[in-house]
Amino acid sequence: MATTTLNFLADFHHVATIGATPDHGVERQAGTPEHGRAREWFRGWAEDHGMAVRVDAVGNTFALYEWVPGADFVLVGSHLDSQPLGGRFDGAYGVIAALHAAAEADARVQEGTFVPKHNLAVVDWFNEEGARFPPSIMGSSVFTGAMDLETILATRDPQGTTVREALESIGCLGRDEPPRPVAYAEVHIEQGRILERERVPIGAVDRSWHTQKLLVHVQGEQSHTGATIMSDRHDALVAAARVVLLVEQVVAEFPPESIVSSVGQLFVEPNSPIVVPREVRLVADLRAERKEDVLTAREILLRRIQDVAAEREIRIDVADFDVREIQRFPEEGLELVEKSAREAGLESLRLRTMAGHDSVPLNRIVPTVMMFVPSVGGVSHCEREFTTDEDMLAGLAMLQQVVLKLAEGQLDDVRPGEATA
Amino acid sequence: MATTTLNFLADFHHVATIGATPDHGVERQAGTPEHGRAREWFRGWAEDHGMAVRVDAVGNTFALYEWVPGADFVLVGSHLDSQPLGGRFDGAYGVIAALHAAAEADARVQEGTFVPKHNLAVVDWFNEEGARFPPSIMGSSVFTGAMDLETILATRDPQGTTVREALESIGCLGRDEPPRPVAYAEVHIEQGRILERERVPIGAVDRSWHTQKLLVHVQGEQSHTGATIMSDRHDALVAAARVVLLVEQVVAEFPPESIVSSVGQLFVEPNSPIVVPREVRLVADLRAERKEDVLTAREILLRRIQDVAAEREIRIDVADFDVREIQRFPEEGLELVEKSAREAGLESLRLRTMAGHDSVPLNRIVPTVMMFVPSVGGVSHCEREFTTDEDMLAGLAMLQQVVLKLAEGQLDDVRPGEATA
Repeated sequence: MATTTLNFLADFHHVATIGATPDHGVERQAGTPEHGRAREWFRGWAEDHGMAVRVDAVGNTFALYEWVPGADFVLVGSHLDSQPLGGRFDGAYGVIAALHAAAEADARVQEGTFVPKHNLAVVDWFNEEGARFPPSIMGSSVFTGAMDLETILATRDPQGTTVREALESIGCLGRDEPPRPVAYAEVHIEQGRILERERVPIGAVDRSWHTQKLLVHVQGEQSHTGATIMSDRHDALVAAARVVLLVEQVVAEFPPESIVSSVGQLFVEPNSPIVVPREVRLVADLRAERKEDVLTAREILLRRIQDVAAEREIRIDVADFDVREIQRFPEEGLELVEKSAREAGLESLRLRTMAGHDSVPLNRIVPTVMMFVPSVGGVSHCEREFTTDEDMLAGLAMLQQVVLKLAEGQLDDVRPGEATA
Repeated sequence: MATTTLNFLADFHHVATIGATPDHGVERQAGTPEHGRAREWFRGWAEDHGMAVRVDAVGNTFALYEWVPGADFVLVGSHLDSQPLGGRFDGAYGVIAALHAAAEADARVQEGTFVPKHNLAVVDWFNEEGARFPPSIMGSSVFTGAMDLETILATRDPQGTTVREALESIGCLGRDEPPRPVAYAEVHIEQGRILERERVPIGAVDRSWHTQKLLVHVQGEQSHTGATIMSDRHDALVAAARVVLLVEQVVAEFPPESIVSSVGQLFVEPNSPIVVPREVRLVADLRAERKEDVLTAREILLRRIQDVAAEREIRIDVADFDVREIQRFPEEGLELVEKSAREAGLESLRLRTMAGHDSVPLNRIVPTVMMFVPSVGGVSHCEREFTTDEDMLAGLAMLQQVVLKLAEGQLDDVRPGEATA
């Protein structure tokens, strides 16, 4: 194990140099050259370790050990793309841990100490982050049938480039049949503070939060910032600023830490210093532990936003977007994590994920195991994101155990996870 | 005159087809292909009417009648560039009226009924609007020495294209010596409602408003819109939304219509739907009839913005930018407009300009005459901008008279305009 863990750390810290930013983050948005270089590293590593590489029509990349000809595959992975000025752990940790866990399992198969029932594939899902091409969790959602392939390939970034063009540009628009899945496992940084606060190294994710986005389109009237008197204006940006504050303020109606809200994206038209803005498009994000809280917050916002529209004599259209129901991960998977942790002498804790992950759509089609390791300070989606080597290695050890159990068929009789209120 | 006016209207409505937008506006931002096509039309028209065309190092284009070899030039003109989805009158009206006024003056010179003291040049200033390349009033400011040529040529648009590259791309990076000016005249739409309200066809502009911009740089911290609890966030967009509202609210401290304020431009980083914004850059615009009101509003804003920064534990830097002192236009020029109007049987009215114009920097170096014609509803910098043919023709007739008087040397002993408090 000592060599394996050293190799893992070397590989992890090498991949962090691809698209590295000055403050220890990475910039590897989906379909950019930096993302392409990280994926080339993935392919090279897999081939060097005897894995066959397949790329599907939405750019998901699979590295396969086909031990049992014709059998289904346990999938294990995460994503190598990042947010703009993102962290080096988010996604990449899970992919590199999956490669090492798979190679370890293969070594046991080769030396005859492990007899698998299923095959094993490491997967690097395309565009989990959704910064350049919304929505997020794109590749895994197409894989599971939750999103339509042609619609996704035609999706454009703000510069007008399509997903299809971006995939072609990095050589990742594949034609391979993806492996047929029987189970899925993923390890990821927590991106919150609970494990750190409780001093527990392993989180067993039992359910996801209910999330949804609102696309808000504010239509005012373009005019001159100098010559137009204030009372004649219908300033779309002033109305949008009110919406941004309403989105933040709505959480005050709920108990602390039970709901979060934000506006992450906002475009102004024409965005000229001497023109009163005509139009603003913004995306609000609502997430709560309970679905009813998201729905209540949405209702409050729709009402208050229309009050702003009426007061300003401006049109504001609001559309629901990217609604994601609460998902429960299977009880048997949680028990598998807890048992593996006990055997490894590690404490574990059940917790919920406020962030979306590739494991959420996978959980709809196959029994899925999702594990977290601690994030220092809970910070994420930024360069300051940090997890210690020790915590990463504990997560890797857990993933190795879980992969072996899944490949033995331990969750074969378990139903996939379900949406719940 | 009948033929001249018909030709003028035909030319005006033809130029409005260059870069025409669906709702009767134009999109001819500085240095774009559409702007280039409007300038090709200008060059062709000038050459067809016996004028020599010169282009200077910042793309200002001059069409010259050199009646008196070696004499200085009266300049008359405006600009052919537009705001994004801008109006078809703003700038283009003044350029086309200037061409027709010049051709009319030349006809009189040729038939011997008018003996000029000075030469005459029609000018199409580069980038008056400043939407793509801030600051506005760029070409005329370089011409008068108020802005530095090399700095301006190196200025980039949001896509990274420089002014120099944009000028080259439309064939307007010239090397010609510009004509030496002795006086300047311009006619422009009012972009406000005063002439319409008072039912007066001609405005004699006596002074400009004091204006300045504030560059506001909000620096928060990037984090995850799902996983980061609300109390851990330092959301730059929420703080920026507060700034946008403060900028609007500050006018309430002053008498109605004595000051205007707005935020026309705002950029969010990283602008991803699932990332709490790290950084916002915005431009606030303050304009008032009295300089002290701009300074007071600025002080109030600086204080309140720092209150927001402290409350949010966010850094907000504010820098002064594009400060423009009040300019008085010479009394003798105002009297010339009033006398010409009386002779033409037209009413005129003295008024101030809240908008900047190329005439403002010109007024610092030569005696300058600035005239307005009415704008329906006062709307401007949008597709709905409108001025009637009748009002445009009245302005053209006035410009023809003013150009003749200036070419006779009527304002030769007048000092240029001055800044004032």
